[in-house]
Amino acid sequence: MKQIAGIAELRDQVEELRRNGRRIGVVPTMGALHEGHLSLVRIARDRSDVVIMTIFVNPTQFAPTEDFASYPRDLQRDADLARSAGADILFVPSDKEVYPQPYQTYVNVEQLTTVLEGKSRPTHFRGVTTVVAKLLNMTMPHIAVFGQKDAQQAAVIRQMAKDLNFPVEIIVGPIVREADGLAMSSRNAYLSGEERAQSPVLSRSIQRAEVLIRGGERESSVIIGDMKTMISAQSLASIDYISVAEYATLRELARLAPGLTVLVSLAVRFGKTRLIDNTIVKVP
Amino acid sequence: MKQIAGIAELRDQVEELRRNGRRIGVVPTMGALHEGHLSLVRIARDRSDVVIMTIFVNPTQFAPTEDFASYPRDLQRDADLARSAGADILFVPSDKEVYPQPYQTYVNVEQLTTVLEGKSRPTHFRGVTTVVAKLLNMTMPHIAVFGQKDAQQAAVIRQMAKDLNFPVEIIVGPIVREADGLAMSSRNAYLSGEERAQSPVLSRSIQRAEVLIRGGERESSVIIGDMKTMISAQSLASIDYISVAEYATLRELARLAPGLTVLVSLAVRFGKTRLIDNTIVKVP
Repeated sequence: MKQIAGIAELRDQVEELRRNGRRIGVVPTMGALHEGHLSLVRIARDRSDVVIMTIFVNPTQFAPTEDFASYPRDLQRDADLARSAGADILFVPSDKEVYPQPYQTYVNVEQLTTVLEGKSRPTHFRGVTTVVAKLLNMTMPHIAVFGQKDAQQAAVIRQMAKDLNFPVEIIVGPIVREADGLAMSSRNAYLSGEERAQSPVLSRSIQRAEVLIRGGERESSVIIGDMKTMISAQSLASIDYISVAEYATLRELARLAPGLTVLVSLAVRFGKTRLIDNTIVKVP
Repeated sequence: MKQIAGIAELRDQVEELRRNGRRIGVVPTMGALHEGHLSLVRIARDRSDVVIMTIFVNPTQFAPTEDFASYPRDLQRDADLARSAGADILFVPSDKEVYPQPYQTYVNVEQLTTVLEGKSRPTHFRGVTTVVAKLLNMTMPHIAVFGQKDAQQAAVIRQMAKDLNFPVEIIVGPIVREADGLAMSSRNAYLSGEERAQSPVLSRSIQRAEVLIRGGERESSVIIGDMKTMISAQSLASIDYISVAEYATLRELARLAPGLTVLVSLAVRFGKTRLIDNTIVKVP
């Protein structure tokens, strides 16, 4: 595995790979790698000749009140994991390399970013789409792989790639979970022992929503009510949102129509740690 | 010359060209071609193997009050001119092909777009940068050529390409003028006989500014005052703005420092027709 920090060196590499007819897959990450990220590298390997993993803790997607400074960073550990999962190139640029001053260009997806995570984190997706547009231009990939855990992020990036005609296929890999169901996330490392012990309620509540929908429940208020009751029973959990939305538009639904694909998603705080989880269900 | 209307067909062509190691140059236009556009095709020919001209009257860069509906369109004439100048591919997509609904992604350059044309046309550059980002992704060029007549547009596109790491070199071709000095523009066709007769005052005022700056004048107010006097002497001219700005930032200057590169620019209406012109001068 080759480690690269400069955009010019990366560009030389990808242009040579393309000239040689190699198919490039990219897995953009913020590091603090876990099995979820590594599963995306394996998906990229299956569908391309050369896998580039990028590690960049992107300042523009954090609000001033968020955890940019404290976000976990351990490059040596990440490099070992990326290599073991089969990455060929690890691209780790500096903030200055990615955002040379005076920086002033932003990519914004309008409707999809106003709901769910976007409502709680109003400047977040503008940072995500901007850095992903940049990383796509830097790595010139044929495919780019993102995780389903960040369901809205995946939808927003897919919309951006389509709207701006990026010559890339966006692939979304399934959520990888701990044995007790907790969706893997770099932020799980922030949890205290007691918070960690309570956190599997999130995936249990998501499973409960799946059971209800597959069993014929059509009222979102009933589904959300059940999830709320489950989560609120945990003393350390504080609900940010629980949503049942049309997957295509991310618009909240009051009633579920048969045949519709819906996204059930939530954000819940345990102390200072904000966790998200979701599932996509087709209404029977 | 091959004429293409579909993005998928264009993509197949450019991917094959790239696989074959051909250098691609693109000249994005809104059609209504004149010698200015054709000079850009010749510049692209000199610096690439295959020249793609795009013709698309981009709705998102026109305000509702502007001339989108009446903008001159004559594809047969344009195709003949593009062929004669040496374009290899003419890409002419429909509105629906470029902006399939629901469309919702925009690219915005922040500081450079708030002044000059951006002050008079607040949504204009967002439309320009969005469509140029899309056209760059559709045509995957090594170089893209724009005209200096739209000086701020060229600066904004250059900033966008740099900020978003587009793998393309932006080239800016010089202004092409009519024999009497009027900068070539598709909108010159709107001018009445009398308006056309008065319009060369714009380039004369620009030349006057060059003479003043090269002669040692350092006060922007003196330069702008002289230009204003010249232009106001024409009965049909109505000044939108005259500006002396630092070229790098487009910030207005009160005094010109030696060694600085400045952009002298103006927008003037003749009846309903809004014309622009400019020059770049290094302060002695």
